[in-house]
Amino acid sequence: MCDRLRRVSGNRETLERFIASLEARDWDTWAGLLDPAVIYEIPQSRERIRGRDRYLRFNQEYPGDWHLRPKMVVADEQHGALWFEWRVDDHGDDAMAFFEFAHGLITRVTDFWPEPYEPPAGREHLVERF
Amino acid sequence: MCDRLRRVSGNRETLERFIASLEARDWDTWAGLLDPAVIYEIPQSRERIRGRDRYLRFNQEYPGDWHLRPKMVVADEQHGALWFEWRVDDHGDDAMAFFEFAHGLITRVTDFWPEPYEPPAGREHLVERF
Repeated sequence: MCDRLRRVSGNRETLERFIASLEARDWDTWAGLLDPAVIYEIPQSRERIRGRDRYLRFNQEYPGDWHLRPKMVVADEQHGALWFEWRVDDHGDDAMAFFEFAHGLITRVTDFWPEPYEPPAGREHLVERF
Repeated sequence: MCDRLRRVSGNRETLERFIASLEARDWDTWAGLLDPAVIYEIPQSRERIRGRDRYLRFNQEYPGDWHLRPKMVVADEQHGALWFEWRVDDHGDDAMAFFEFAHGLITRVTDFWPEPYEPPAGREHLVERF
Protein backbone atom coordinates (compact mmCIF):
# COMPACT_ATOMS: atom_id res chain seq x y z
CA MET A 1 0.00 0.00 0.00
CA CYS A 2 1.51 3.32 -1.02
CA ASP A 3 1.91 6.16 1.49
CA ARG A 4 -0.77 8.42 0.10
CA LEU A 5 -3.33 5.63 0.21
CA ARG A 6 -2.36 4.93 3.82
CA ARG A 7 -3.26 8.53 4.60
CA VAL A 8 -6.64 8.14 2.87
CA SER A 9 -7.40 5.01 4.92
CA GLY A 10 -6.19 6.71 8.10
CA ASN A 11 -8.53 9.65 7.59
CA ARG A 12 -11.47 7.34 6.90
CA GLU A 13 -10.70 5.44 10.11
CA THR A 14 -10.56 8.75 11.97
CA LEU A 15 -14.11 9.53 10.80
CA GLU A 16 -15.33 6.04 11.74
CA ARG A 17 -13.86 6.54 15.22
CA PHE A 18 -15.26 10.10 15.37
CA ILE A 19 -18.87 8.93 15.00
CA ALA A 20 -18.45 5.71 17.05
CA SER A 21 -16.81 7.47 20.01
CA LEU A 22 -19.41 10.25 19.94
CA GLU A 23 -22.21 7.66 20.01
CA ALA A 24 -20.39 5.87 22.90
CA ARG A 25 -19.74 9.15 24.80
CA ASP A 26 -16.10 7.98 24.84
CA TRP A 27 -14.91 11.56 25.25
CA ASP A 28 -11.18 10.78 25.56
CA THR A 29 -11.13 8.91 22.25
CA TRP A 30 -13.29 11.54 20.58
CA ALA A 31 -11.25 14.53 21.77
CA GLY A 32 -8.06 12.72 20.80
CA LEU A 33 -9.06 12.89 17.14
CA LEU A 34 -9.27 16.69 17.19
CA ASP A 35 -6.62 19.31 16.73
CA PRO A 36 -6.55 21.56 19.84
CA ALA A 37 -7.40 24.53 17.60
CA VAL A 38 -10.24 22.76 15.72
CA ILE A 39 -12.99 25.01 14.32
CA TYR A 40 -16.58 23.72 14.40
CA GLU A 41 -19.21 25.52 12.35
CA ILE A 42 -22.97 25.18 11.79
CA PRO A 43 -23.68 27.35 8.73
CA GLN A 44 -27.49 27.06 9.03
CA SER A 45 -27.49 28.86 12.38
CA ARG A 46 -24.26 30.79 11.70
CA GLU A 47 -22.67 29.33 14.85
CA ARG A 48 -18.95 28.78 15.34
CA ILE A 49 -17.03 27.10 18.19
CA ARG A 50 -13.28 27.61 18.48
CA GLY A 51 -11.09 24.94 20.02
CA ARG A 52 -11.29 21.33 21.15
CA ASP A 53 -12.23 22.11 24.75
CA ARG A 54 -15.35 24.12 23.90
CA TYR A 55 -16.36 21.70 21.14
CA LEU A 56 -16.06 18.81 23.62
CA ARG A 57 -18.17 20.68 26.17
CA PHE A 58 -20.76 21.50 23.48
CA ASN A 59 -21.25 17.78 22.81
CA GLN A 60 -21.14 16.77 26.46
CA GLU A 61 -23.82 19.35 27.27
CA TYR A 62 -25.99 18.63 24.22
CA PRO A 63 -29.45 17.81 25.62
CA GLY A 64 -31.45 14.61 25.08
CA ASP A 65 -30.63 10.93 24.70
CA TRP A 66 -29.18 11.36 21.20
CA HIS A 67 -27.86 8.53 19.04
CA LEU A 68 -25.83 8.59 15.84
CA ARG A 69 -25.38 5.96 13.14
CA PRO A 70 -23.10 6.42 10.10
CA LYS A 71 -24.64 5.94 6.63
CA MET A 72 -21.62 6.92 4.52
CA VAL A 73 -18.03 7.65 5.49
CA VAL A 74 -15.72 9.06 2.82
CA ALA A 75 -12.25 10.54 3.13
CA ASP A 76 -9.27 11.40 1.01
CA GLU A 77 -5.86 12.79 1.94
CA GLN A 78 -7.11 16.20 3.08
CA HIS A 79 -10.90 16.11 3.38
CA GLY A 80 -13.71 13.93 4.64
CA ALA A 81 -17.48 13.68 4.78
CA LEU A 82 -19.85 11.82 7.03
CA TRP A 83 -23.53 11.21 6.28
CA PHE A 84 -25.25 9.94 9.39
CA GLU A 85 -28.61 9.30 10.97
CA TRP A 86 -29.44 10.96 14.31
CA ARG A 87 -32.19 9.93 16.70
CA VAL A 88 -33.50 11.61 19.87
CA ASP A 89 -36.24 9.57 21.51
CA ASP A 90 -38.68 8.68 18.67
CA HIS A 91 -37.58 11.56 16.41
CA GLY A 92 -34.79 11.25 13.87
CA ASP A 93 -33.44 12.23 10.48
CA ASP A 94 -30.28 12.48 8.38
CA ALA A 95 -27.44 14.93 8.95
CA MET A 96 -23.97 15.38 7.48
CA ALA A 97 -20.58 16.78 8.38
CA PHE A 98 -17.56 17.84 6.34
CA PHE A 99 -14.01 17.61 7.69
CA GLU A 100 -10.53 18.96 7.09
CA PHE A 101 -7.45 17.06 8.29
CA ALA A 102 -3.88 18.06 9.02
CA HIS A 103 -1.10 15.88 10.45
CA GLY A 104 -3.65 13.11 11.19
CA LEU A 105 -6.01 15.27 13.25
CA ILE A 106 -9.33 16.94 12.46
CA THR A 107 -8.83 20.70 12.09
CA ARG A 108 -12.30 21.74 10.90
CA VAL A 109 -15.84 20.30 11.14
CA THR A 110 -18.86 21.83 9.38
CA ASP A 111 -22.21 20.17 9.87
CA PHE A 112 -25.70 20.43 8.44
CA TRP A 113 -29.13 19.41 9.75
CA PRO A 114 -31.66 19.38 6.88
CA GLU A 115 -35.43 19.30 7.54
CA PRO A 116 -38.14 17.52 5.53
CA TYR A 117 -40.10 19.53 2.95
CA GLU A 118 -42.84 18.93 0.41
CA PRO A 119 -41.69 18.65 -3.22
CA PRO A 120 -42.51 21.56 -5.52
CA ALA A 121 -45.11 20.92 -8.23
CA GLY A 122 -44.13 20.26 -11.83
CA ARG A 123 -41.82 17.26 -11.65
CA GLU A 124 -44.30 14.47 -10.93
CA HIS A 125 -43.68 13.02 -14.45
CA LEU A 126 -40.08 12.21 -13.47
CA VAL A 127 -40.27 11.45 -9.77
CA GLU A 128 -41.63 8.75 -7.47
CA ARG A 129 -42.16 9.24 -3.71
CA PHE A 130 -40.74 6.97 -1.02
CA MET B 1 0.91 5.94 -7.95
CA CYS B 2 -0.72 2.66 -6.98
CA ASP B 3 -3.91 1.39 -8.63
CA ARG B 4 -6.23 1.98 -5.71
CA LEU B 5 -5.07 5.59 -5.39
CA ARG B 6 -5.65 6.08 -9.12
CA ARG B 7 -9.26 5.02 -8.54
CA VAL B 8 -9.59 7.54 -5.68
CA SER B 9 -8.26 10.35 -7.91
CA GLY B 10 -10.50 9.23 -10.78
CA ASN B 11 -13.61 9.40 -8.62
CA ARG B 12 -12.66 12.84 -7.32
CA GLU B 13 -12.18 14.04 -10.90
CA THR B 14 -15.61 12.60 -11.77
CA LEU B 15 -17.18 14.74 -9.05
CA GLU B 16 -15.30 17.84 -10.19
CA ARG B 17 -16.59 17.24 -13.72
CA PHE B 18 -20.10 16.49 -12.38
CA ILE B 19 -20.47 19.92 -10.80
CA ALA B 20 -18.60 21.82 -13.54
CA SER B 21 -20.62 20.27 -16.39
CA LEU B 22 -23.89 20.84 -14.51
CA GLU B 23 -22.98 24.52 -14.03
CA ALA B 24 -22.04 24.72 -17.75
CA ARG B 25 -25.23 22.90 -18.87
CA ASP B 26 -22.82 20.62 -20.76
CA TRP B 27 -25.38 17.81 -20.76
CA ASP B 28 -23.35 15.32 -22.81
CA THR B 29 -20.41 15.48 -20.42
CA TRP B 30 -22.68 15.39 -17.39
CA ALA B 31 -24.75 12.40 -18.56
CA GLY B 32 -21.56 10.58 -19.56
CA LEU B 33 -20.54 10.42 -15.88
CA LEU B 34 -23.70 8.54 -14.92
CA ASP B 35 -24.53 4.85 -15.01
CA PRO B 36 -27.65 4.35 -17.19
CA ALA B 37 -29.40 2.86 -14.14
CA VAL B 38 -28.35 5.65 -11.73
CA ILE B 39 -30.68 6.30 -8.79
CA TYR B 40 -31.15 9.90 -7.62
CA GLU B 41 -32.81 10.55 -4.26
CA ILE B 42 -33.84 13.62 -2.25
CA PRO B 43 -34.56 12.26 1.26
CA GLN B 44 -36.01 15.55 2.55
CA SER B 45 -38.91 15.39 0.08
CA ARG B 46 -38.83 11.58 -0.24
CA GLU B 47 -38.36 11.88 -4.01
CA ARG B 48 -36.59 9.30 -6.19
CA ILE B 49 -35.68 9.36 -9.88
CA ARG B 50 -34.68 6.14 -11.63
CA GLY B 51 -32.30 6.21 -14.56
CA ARG B 52 -29.97 8.60 -16.35
CA ASP B 53 -32.54 9.80 -18.89
CA ARG B 54 -35.06 11.01 -16.31
CA TYR B 55 -32.35 12.47 -14.07
CA LEU B 56 -30.98 14.39 -17.07
CA ARG B 57 -34.44 15.69 -17.91
CA PHE B 58 -35.00 16.67 -14.25
CA ASN B 59 -31.94 18.91 -14.38
CA GLN B 60 -32.65 20.27 -17.86
CA GLU B 61 -36.19 21.23 -16.75
CA TYR B 62 -35.17 22.61 -13.34
CA PRO B 63 -36.54 26.18 -13.28
CA GLY B 64 -34.56 29.39 -12.72
CA ASP B 65 -31.11 30.66 -13.65
CA TRP B 66 -29.35 28.41 -11.13
CA HIS B 67 -25.60 28.35 -10.53
CA LEU B 68 -23.43 25.90 -8.61
CA ARG B 69 -19.95 26.31 -7.10
CA PRO B 70 -18.10 23.48 -5.32
CA LYS B 71 -16.85 24.13 -1.76
CA MET B 72 -15.47 20.65 -0.98
CA VAL B 73 -15.00 17.60 -3.19
CA VAL B 74 -14.03 14.35 -1.52
CA ALA B 75 -13.95 10.81 -2.92
CA ASP B 76 -12.50 7.44 -2.14
CA GLU B 77 -12.60 4.17 -4.08
CA GLN B 78 -16.35 3.61 -3.69
CA HIS B 79 -17.96 6.78 -2.35
CA GLY B 80 -17.90 10.52 -2.76
CA ALA B 81 -19.32 13.72 -1.34
CA LEU B 82 -19.76 17.19 -2.73
CA TRP B 83 -20.47 20.29 -0.64
CA PHE B 84 -21.49 23.13 -2.92
CA GLU B 85 -23.06 26.57 -3.00
CA TRP B 86 -26.15 27.14 -5.14
CA ARG B 87 -27.48 30.50 -6.30
CA VAL B 88 -30.74 31.41 -8.06
CA ASP B 89 -30.93 35.15 -8.80
CA ASP B 90 -30.05 36.87 -5.51
CA HIS B 91 -30.91 33.88 -3.30
CA GLY B 92 -28.41 31.19 -2.38
CA ASP B 93 -27.17 28.74 0.23
CA ASP B 94 -25.17 25.55 0.75
CA ALA B 95 -26.21 22.07 -0.37
CA MET B 96 -24.52 18.67 -0.48
CA ALA B 97 -24.64 15.41 -2.37
CA PHE B 98 -23.35 11.91 -1.63
CA PHE B 99 -22.29 9.53 -4.40
CA GLU B 100 -21.69 5.84 -5.05
CA PHE B 101 -19.42 4.69 -7.86
CA ALA B 102 -19.07 1.45 -9.79
CA HIS B 103 -16.78 0.77 -12.76
CA GLY B 104 -15.92 4.48 -13.00
CA LEU B 105 -19.52 5.72 -13.24
CA ILE B 106 -21.89 7.29 -10.72
CA THR B 107 -24.54 4.76 -9.68
CA ARG B 108 -26.30 6.69 -6.91
CA VAL B 109 -26.70 10.37 -5.94
CA THR B 110 -28.41 11.54 -2.74
CA ASP B 111 -28.65 15.24 -2.13
CA PHE B 112 -29.70 17.57 0.68
CA TRP B 113 -30.86 21.20 0.74
CA PRO B 114 -30.65 22.55 4.33
CA GLU B 115 -32.40 25.78 5.35
CA PRO B 116 -31.23 28.44 7.84
CA TYR B 117 -32.53 28.27 11.42
CA GLU B 118 -32.10 30.20 14.66
CA PRO B 119 -29.82 28.52 17.24
CA PRO B 120 -31.51 27.03 20.32
CA ALA B 121 -30.90 28.80 23.63
CA GLY B 122 -28.43 27.46 26.19
CA ARG B 123 -25.15 27.30 24.31
CA GLU B 124 -24.23 30.98 24.07
CA HIS B 125 -21.32 30.41 26.49
CA LEU B 126 -19.58 28.20 23.89
CA VAL B 127 -20.66 29.67 20.56
CA GLU B 128 -20.01 32.80 18.49
CA ARG B 129 -22.25 33.89 15.57
CA PHE B 130 -21.00 34.63 12.07
